Amino acid sequence: MQAKENAISKLIQQLEKLPGIGQKTAQRLAFYIINMKNEDVKALAEAILSAKNSTKLCKICCNFTEGDICHICSDDKRDRSIICVVEEPQDVVALEKVKEYKGLYHVLHGAISPLKGKYPEQLTIDVLLKRLADTNVKEVIIATNPDVDGEATASYLARLIKPMGIKVTRIARGIPVGGDIEYADEVTILKAIEGRKEI
Amino acid sequence: MQAKENAISKLIQQLEKLPGIGQKTAQRLAFYIINMKNEDVKALAEAILSAKNSTKLCKICCNFTEGDICHICSDDKRDRSIICVVEEPQDVVALEKVKEYKGLYHVLHGAISPLKGKYPEQLTIDVLLKRLADTNVKEVIIATNPDVDGEATASYLARLIKPMGIKVTRIARGIPVGGDIEYADEVTILKAIEGRKEI
Repeated sequence: MQAKENAISKLIQQLEKLPGIGQKTAQRLAFYIINMKNEDVKALAEAILSAKNSTKLCKICCNFTEGDICHICSDDKRDRSIICVVEEPQDVVALEKVKEYKGLYHVLHGAISPLKGKYPEQLTIDVLLKRLADTNVKEVIIATNPDVDGEATASYLARLIKPMGIKVTRIARGIPVGGDIEYADEVTILKAIEGRKEI
Repeated sequence: MQAKENAISKLIQQLEKLPGIGQKTAQRLAFYIINMKNEDVKALAEAILSAKNSTKLCKICCNFTEGDICHICSDDKRDRSIICVVEEPQDVVALEKVKEYKGLYHVLHGAISPLKGKYPEQLTIDVLLKRLADTNVKEVIIATNPDVDGEATASYLARLIKPMGIKVTRIARGIPVGGDIEYADEVTILKAIEGRKEI
């Protein structure tokens, strides 16, 4: 794109910043947007601004919400004695899809990773600890990702929470359903054997 | 996403409308956008609106432009005796990248496709014919895609332009450079043989 086609190339540049969108995709999206109806383009731009502006963190669990308290924390039917700790709001969406878990959540907004410059103070761990001290929680399920950062975060949290007399559990790691043992990595197989259950 | 998380799910819905963006990608993009800095989100939304609002069709070649005449049509160094007809503005970008072609362009904004409800009247064919009648063009290169619609459009244009005494050519179809004859389809191989050149 030439410098003269300024608005289009600016849009391509902006779109390229999004994750998983390279130069070709950005170009395709930009031309698609220009061909969209005026009102659709407006709706898209407004949805972007409104999602950003109206989204706050829930004062209890730090998940994204539009009010002060998210719809899960304010739901009377949820079990308040159990908290599932996750890294990101997306993880809550994934867990909620299963429709099995009825407890509350706590969103850390990341995992401890000194290499990526992410330290415990930057996560919502202080909010979680205060929450555990103030309420009557019996179990904390740590559902951070089973990678290096997630495991480090899990150990860190367990060390802080266990002394409070609260049961701390970790989600099971093993062969994914539909997966193939032949292609699973060694650590996953090890965890699957360690986590075996009587049938 | 629950109904209560309105702004986020609205954004996901809007993003899903874009080509090549499914539900999972839309969700990932939405959460990414919410985590972006305020000014970056604003810049993205503004780039979308500004690209849409400031982009018009060039009065000569119907390519996207911000002024009345695009930077190619207003460039004195381009050869005005030759016009390359393409389906979409993206095709101009692709052809310009080669930096070999020095003529002008004409963007049809689609190809004739009765099945998709696209008829000659909906393309910029009338603008092209008027342009050819008014100016001293010696050759028209038809660079529509080598698929059913593109070929139909090429034949249609050739039938209209040839009687005006203008040379009409079609881009070569053949094995793509780096491609493998073994895996090429029959029609492409046929076109490659038909289009063979003495070396």
